[in-house]
Amino acid sequence: MDQKLEFTPVGTIRSCFREKFGIPRQAGLVPDSRAVLKFNDGQEFRDALRGLEGFSHVWIVTVFHGNTPSEEGSWKPLVRPPRLGGTQKVGVFASRSPHRPNPIGLSAVKLEKIVADAPGGAELHLRGIDFLDGTPVLDVKPYVPYSDSIPEASSGWATPSAEIRRETGVEFTAAALQAISDFEAQGFTRFRALIEQVIQQDPRPSFQTRRAQTQTGASESYGCRLYDFDVRWKIENDQAVVVEIEDLR
Amino acid sequence: MDQKLEFTPVGTIRSCFREKFGIPRQAGLVPDSRAVLKFNDGQEFRDALRGLEGFSHVWIVTVFHGNTPSEEGSWKPLVRPPRLGGTQKVGVFASRSPHRPNPIGLSAVKLEKIVADAPGGAELHLRGIDFLDGTPVLDVKPYVPYSDSIPEASSGWATPSAEIRRETGVEFTAAALQAISDFEAQGFTRFRALIEQVIQQDPRPSFQTRRAQTQTGASESYGCRLYDFDVRWKIENDQAVVVEIEDLR
Repeated sequence: MDQKLEFTPVGTIRSCFREKFGIPRQAGLVPDSRAVLKFNDGQEFRDALRGLEGFSHVWIVTVFHGNTPSEEGSWKPLVRPPRLGGTQKVGVFASRSPHRPNPIGLSAVKLEKIVADAPGGAELHLRGIDFLDGTPVLDVKPYVPYSDSIPEASSGWATPSAEIRRETGVEFTAAALQAISDFEAQGFTRFRALIEQVIQQDPRPSFQTRRAQTQTGASESYGCRLYDFDVRWKIENDQAVVVEIEDLR
Repeated sequence: MDQKLEFTPVGTIRSCFREKFGIPRQAGLVPDSRAVLKFNDGQEFRDALRGLEGFSHVWIVTVFHGNTPSEEGSWKPLVRPPRLGGTQKVGVFASRSPHRPNPIGLSAVKLEKIVADAPGGAELHLRGIDFLDGTPVLDVKPYVPYSDSIPEASSGWATPSAEIRRETGVEFTAAALQAISDFEAQGFTRFRALIEQVIQQDPRPSFQTRRAQTQTGASESYGCRLYDFDVRWKIENDQAVVVEIEDLR
């Protein structure tokens, strides 16, 4: 069982997430995150989408391409999930870590629109995504709830409460609100909602969260790139405040 | 985006399904179907399973290896799903057909037991499977209901009613019942339930089903291999009767 198998991407993801920090740990956690899957050009890919419009969700099978050169091709049997504070180890097959024997990603996402005749290649417009911009795509499959949806499945250490902290509000400075208002007027709808959702799923490693909780009054700064905007926020007394949004275009 | 990506299987499936006919079209449809995922030998694969015991279900990412040589590596943008009677075409990305640009399979299955220290390589014991015996495995991921389970997803043409016909009873001849009783006493527990479930999910192509319905009294014979047993049944007046079970050991 040492044979090598060769795959060729069928397309590439263009995502609102332009860097790894800020990407939700699972699909579906940031409903206003958006991506476009651009298929390689050709009539065969256009035809291959026929009938997909009846499905509200799709599986996207991807390749984790964002690993640094030193990480690429290497994997360790044990990983430290950020949600376990970075202090506890679990097996890589008990995690969704990108550093796996075969770096294959799997995301159930909302299918918003199919543009089969887009110039340069067919497009799927997707929401609730967790893709880094530039991700290669190996396959698309319809989400079939009667076999794929198992709500009663028990989920070990990966509990939803550990992933989402919707109770934490996000505040904005007047300057940040003004910038958001400008961008939304340019067509970036629900940009504010996207920022709120990204911050609320708390991209900080948990050990930092705990540190912030114990050092009352400590102020920490974070930034992440969403589309071509650099969004910067502070955590003060466990409260997130978006202080600056820089347009990098 | 024409780069080729190379993957190496981490293990192989030993399945009750020894031939393609009879395999359910999705995981979960035949709850008493069983498989063992045997990892390649090595401490790293044993370690990589740590913490997986907290999850009731896992995703198994496989390679469709059962295609005939003429089918291998070739794909067509449109396929004719058996459930649509073999007469209607849908795009391959709107189907779970094994003939895909990249022949990657995806199954959510029940994790029954982990035998990390099995001789020759760690084992996952799985139920509700849809794997052909010998299937290479690329990856294992925990099933995480808060992101993977989307019960409200709409499923296009792939409706559950088209997949399962539990209303159809399965009858057995006295000889078949005696054979089943013997095998179950040898440790093949729930072998009768497995046979019933395989026949009830109706592995016949739909156009044959319709033909059987119109030709009242027509008798058709089918057979499939489950473990090392050849199970043969007839359809008479829309009623399945298991007539023979041959032990091929």
